[in-house]
Amino acid sequence: MDRNPQLNKNGELQHLLSIEGLPREVIERVLATADSFVGVTEREVKKVPLLRGKSVFNLFFEPSTRTRTTFEIAAKRLSADVINLNIAASSQSKGESLLDTIANLSAMQADIYVVRHASSGAPFLIARHVKPHEHVINAGDGRHAHPTQGLLDLYTLRHYKKDFTQLTVAIVGDVLHSRVARSLIHGLTTLGTPEVRVIGPQTLMPSGVEALGVHVYRDMREGLKGCDAVVMLRLQNERMRGALLPSAQEFFKHFGLTADKLALAKPDVIVMHPGPMNRGVEIDSSVADGPHSVILPQVTFGIAVRMAVMSMVGGASA
Amino acid sequence: MDRNPQLNKNGELQHLLSIEGLPREVIERVLATADSFVGVTEREVKKVPLLRGKSVFNLFFEPSTRTRTTFEIAAKRLSADVINLNIAASSQSKGESLLDTIANLSAMQADIYVVRHASSGAPFLIARHVKPHEHVINAGDGRHAHPTQGLLDLYTLRHYKKDFTQLTVAIVGDVLHSRVARSLIHGLTTLGTPEVRVIGPQTLMPSGVEALGVHVYRDMREGLKGCDAVVMLRLQNERMRGALLPSAQEFFKHFGLTADKLALAKPDVIVMHPGPMNRGVEIDSSVADGPHSVILPQVTFGIAVRMAVMSMVGGASA
Amino acid sequence: MDRNPQLNKNGELQHLLSIEGLPREVIERVLATADSFVGVTEREVKKVPLLRGKSVFNLFFEPSTRTRTTFEIAAKRLSADVINLNIAASSQSKGESLLDTIANLSAMQADIYVVRHASSGAPFLIARHVKPHEHVINAGDGRHAHPTQGLLDLYTLRHYKKDFTQLTVAIVGDVLHSRVARSLIHGLTTLGTPEVRVIGPQTLMPSGVEALGVHVYRDMREGLKGCDAVVMLRLQNERMRGALLPSAQEFFKHFGLTADKLALAKPDVIVMHPGPMNRGVEIDSSVADGPHSVILPQVTFGIAVRMAVMSMVGGASA
Repeated sequence: MDRNPQLNKNGELQHLLSIEGLPREVIERVLATADSFVGVTEREVKKVPLLRGKSVFNLFFEPSTRTRTTFEIAAKRLSADVINLNIAASSQSKGESLLDTIANLSAMQADIYVVRHASSGAPFLIARHVKPHEHVINAGDGRHAHPTQGLLDLYTLRHYKKDFTQLTVAIVGDVLHSRVARSLIHGLTTLGTPEVRVIGPQTLMPSGVEALGVHVYRDMREGLKGCDAVVMLRLQNERMRGALLPSAQEFFKHFGLTADKLALAKPDVIVMHPGPMNRGVEIDSSVADGPHSVILPQVTFGIAVRMAVMSMVGGASA
Repeated sequence: MDRNPQLNKNGELQHLLSIEGLPREVIERVLATADSFVGVTEREVKKVPLLRGKSVFNLFFEPSTRTRTTFEIAAKRLSADVINLNIAASSQSKGESLLDTIANLSAMQADIYVVRHASSGAPFLIARHVKPHEHVINAGDGRHAHPTQGLLDLYTLRHYKKDFTQLTVAIVGDVLHSRVARSLIHGLTTLGTPEVRVIGPQTLMPSGVEALGVHVYRDMREGLKGCDAVVMLRLQNERMRGALLPSAQEFFKHFGLTADKLALAKPDVIVMHPGPMNRGVEIDSSVADGPHSVILPQVTFGIAVRMAVMSMVGGASA
Repeated sequence: MDRNPQLNKNGELQHLLSIEGLPREVIERVLATADSFVGVTEREVKKVPLLRGKSVFNLFFEPSTRTRTTFEIAAKRLSADVINLNIAASSQSKGESLLDTIANLSAMQADIYVVRHASSGAPFLIARHVKPHEHVINAGDGRHAHPTQGLLDLYTLRHYKKDFTQLTVAIVGDVLHSRVARSLIHGLTTLGTPEVRVIGPQTLMPSGVEALGVHVYRDMREGLKGCDAVVMLRLQNERMRGALLPSAQEFFKHFGLTADKLALAKPDVIVMHPGPMNRGVEIDSSVADGPHSVILPQVTFGIAVRMAVMSMVGGASA
């Protein structure tokens, strides 16, 4: 791939494909823009006219009701027209190629494509083929990236901890299969977080992960020591049934977050999770619902961050 | 369950979970509010801005296109943003609990949840866990209640018959499995209807139904005598295949509403049905489409009643 | 069928069921109205308030995400409230008849029904039963008609070729199963196109097609000579697997549009296709993406044409 296609010639956000390659100023601008939308979503009338008359297409090539819902809400609160397309059940089954599908939607005068796809890189491919006034937002591609989740994680950290350059953050669990982990690590590094740790069993740790600038821990208690924030990853059910893990019980014993283990982190540690949670597998309910948990505020901030990204690429700032 | 959670401290509608426990004044206020919306839906521009910027989530844990459509229309005519969630195909399959799903949607700043669930009591459970500014409307839970259907039945009766305290109403068919019947019986009783009859075979009659203040008839001709209104219930297909009934033909012979049987009621009797109808099973087409039928006006009133309930709980009156 | 039910007493468009029977003036008015909407869809705010407060029901009795999407976009850009109903999964499975379904939606105060149905004539049946202020738009019924596709084809031809009375147009492929071909042939004839040709193998050509005023060619090279426009039809996958065709490769050899064959048409020939394309079956990619292709502009014009039809029947012109 030539240059990072996410920015236009003026260095403004054109597409959001991955946090990797996003300059620090752009990430900070997303977070600052999201600040203003957190206020909007708390108002009686939770709507601003920034994308009125714009067409947002939710293109979900794999189902994800939760993620689709967050984008749908964010777009509607920006007053956009939203069209939900579940593509698995559609043209793809008629043998139409991804790029023909996009060319068709583009001819219908789309403004923003929110793309979820099982194949890594699909949103990049689309971004290379759309017209200059069209924008692509990656809502999760294969194991590669989930940048709005990464950005909302960063927003949450900034909200509670202010200064990234003083933080120790641990990411725990199935790092190997997690696009959330990849996106977050890139964001934390870009914003100058001095200590990022990944904790998990060897079978769920990508080889060479140290190259991303993180420290690897096999022992969760060791890894949690002195942390300002703990980000738990979701363990996919299929992993539990597969050969990668002995059992959910065994996983919980070693890598499930309990109050006991959490006590090793800083007293004001915050606990995050991208949802949906497997209670009793990667996290104990007492922690998920406890005083350190900011899991539900993450969801709230996620709407504001998605509104920020959509309004920025949608040229609302023009 | 402690106190009826449907009212706030000022006695205003906070949630609509069942007609059981709704005070007479509240029911009457719903009906009066619906009056104003019947006018709206007949206008050229069928829209009022009462819920502009509010987020209505249609949470259907079991599919019901018809009911979902009526709530979607009602919410859009109040200018709300509507998000349809078919939960069976979603987070529940990822093992997320009902309350985690709700907590997440709440974090997205929901205003109103319209809930359809196969389990009796699910909307009550949700209502006990949402925030004070959030509202739950039961769109049918198991065999328990379907209060907007009950309210539209009451609206229809009031529209055609004016005074509940003079009425004889018969409810006919599968009372045992009908949440429609339960909701309506409670409403009729609360509004002072002196004579409510239930008519059906013993296998489809709940034991102890008399405790609800109704009279039970096994003989339909006997039960229809002197009625002002006949409410036919839908016979579920699965009952017809099961052991509870000999056959659809046999059922129709004894409990199907024909012009012949209807002649035993008052000359100005009205015929109601919650839909969808099984023509030739619980009702003859000549009656369904005949001069006594108010089945289609029920649908029209149903939109107005749902608009009334949503605008009342949504604080539009504040 | 008595009189063509598409026009009201003043000769204005009441329903759009088929191009067959539409007077020339009405077709021309649709095309002229669409002109104004092409401008709207290119604006920053792609929205006009012509159908504000109107309810448009997308009734898809067979799935077609692509067609549904074009109508949904068109309706939203007219500011209508849009309700998508996938009826296969709904009341029909509860044994409710088509007309009961329509009567119910009508009672919910529908304004426009967009109907897609596997049975030829279903939209006509519906149109005969709706109220005077309700309107039906056929979005494809069996093999019969697909009039908005026909109208957008006419719009495209007019856009590029101006004068229908000077044109030679060839329609190529599976004419037998194509509602697109039928609709277009009627439109071309009505607008005075002097030479309409159909090209395809005998097994995919309706018997007696000449009665529609077209010339039949078995030899594609012969048929393309001197054409101003070539309309390729989609070959359904099921035909390729069936007995009607030897193989996709064989079909492409004889009836696939290649640059080579296209050279026999006029130098400024345009190439059209209703989509989705089977590249390498009915059309070569070099032609589909080549300088003569107007396949993507067709999609753009399709939105404008659907906005035109909806605004005309919706009484926006009143």
